Amino acid sequence: MSKEISQAVIRRMPRYYRYLGELLDVGVERISSNELSSKMKVTASQIRQDLNNFGGFGQQGYGYNVKYLYEEIGKILGLDHQHNIIVIGAGNLGQALANYVKFEKRGFMITGLFDVNPALLGLSVRGIEIRLLDELEEFVRNNKVDIAALTMPKERAEEVANQLVGLGVNAIWNFAHLDLELPEHVVVENVHLSDSLMQLSYNIVKKEYNAEKK
Amino acid sequence: MSKEISQAVIRRMPRYYRYLGELLDVGVERISSNELSSKMKVTASQIRQDLNNFGGFGQQGYGYNVKYLYEEIGKILGLDHQHNIIVIGAGNLGQALANYVKFEKRGFMITGLFDVNPALLGLSVRGIEIRLLDELEEFVRNNKVDIAALTMPKERAEEVANQLVGLGVNAIWNFAHLDLELPEHVVVENVHLSDSLMQLSYNIVKKEYNAEKK
Repeated sequence: MSKEISQAVIRRMPRYYRYLGELLDVGVERISSNELSSKMKVTASQIRQDLNNFGGFGQQGYGYNVKYLYEEIGKILGLDHQHNIIVIGAGNLGQALANYVKFEKRGFMITGLFDVNPALLGLSVRGIEIRLLDELEEFVRNNKVDIAALTMPKERAEEVANQLVGLGVNAIWNFAHLDLELPEHVVVENVHLSDSLMQLSYNIVKKEYNAEKK
Repeated sequence: MSKEISQAVIRRMPRYYRYLGELLDVGVERISSNELSSKMKVTASQIRQDLNNFGGFGQQGYGYNVKYLYEEIGKILGLDHQHNIIVIGAGNLGQALANYVKFEKRGFMITGLFDVNPALLGLSVRGIEIRLLDELEEFVRNNKVDIAALTMPKERAEEVANQLVGLGVNAIWNFAHLDLELPEHVVVENVHLSDSLMQLSYNIVKKEYNAEKK
């Protein structure tokens, strides 16, 4: 992992991981890049190129060992580490995240759930107690927190993100509808649902336009 | 909109739209590509290039008229149309989507909410009644449905997506953790939360590795 790999390649790795996991589940032990290619609808040369970024893994005439490749990609993606996640905002979206059992299988443990709404105090989601935002600082000081997911309204997101960074949390999974301005050492991954919806809408209009032209 | 524009450019358009909307909100009437550049942390030449795909909008020495650019990008993104959305899966995530008031401001109206769980029957979210999946066909036949958001487990997603396509729904906003195989005329936009989390995790591990090297 010494050279810089483009985010476009990285963005495809979870998909490889997902497909390989499905192959493993149905007992497939090895697969050629051509078979993987037709399954994933990516060219075989793209697959070879992508995986060569990390040293290859394939063997001429044999293809890929599914379990080995799955585990190696898992390591590349950091899934051999446990990541503790706290969720700030215990509304529907925050609760949805806390309810995803599958995250845990990949080492992502939701360990805290915070909200400003006192009405939620005392409630818990899958055994995770909802705490008030006032308790955030104490919690982060006393527990290992690797990632904070922000599922709160954008108005307070910047302030809370800065507080978290000040407390040593260096990774933010941001669902708030703004681009956070944070120090460079902080890793931010955005999930902007409105942006995604607008992209969908663009593609709808474009398809309709193209269909009319025909 | 006659030539093919890359999805990378399209993916940046909602962000322009968002920033221009914020400028409008605080009363900014015009902005140079340099100012927009420093605000958005994108190079000015990238901005000019992106917007040139759609015919420019800028004037030498004047910059961009914020309101005009905002509206034009809105049209490009299809936000001058109303889009009716139904949500399949009324769990936390489905309810979170139904609760996003901001979608409506951009013309995305949640008009139906469906689930397989009879316990949810009779409940409603922001006035939208939760219906059983059995009623889906009748609902789609009797109401204009432009987009279906799938927030259900992946096991049934493919089947329901095919049913929807058969009923004439041509756009799927897919939150289920699989890649749908659908006819080519169908527009699909994926939100794969696990993939996003794995990308975050990759970037955390990479940063730690780079920090250790120093």
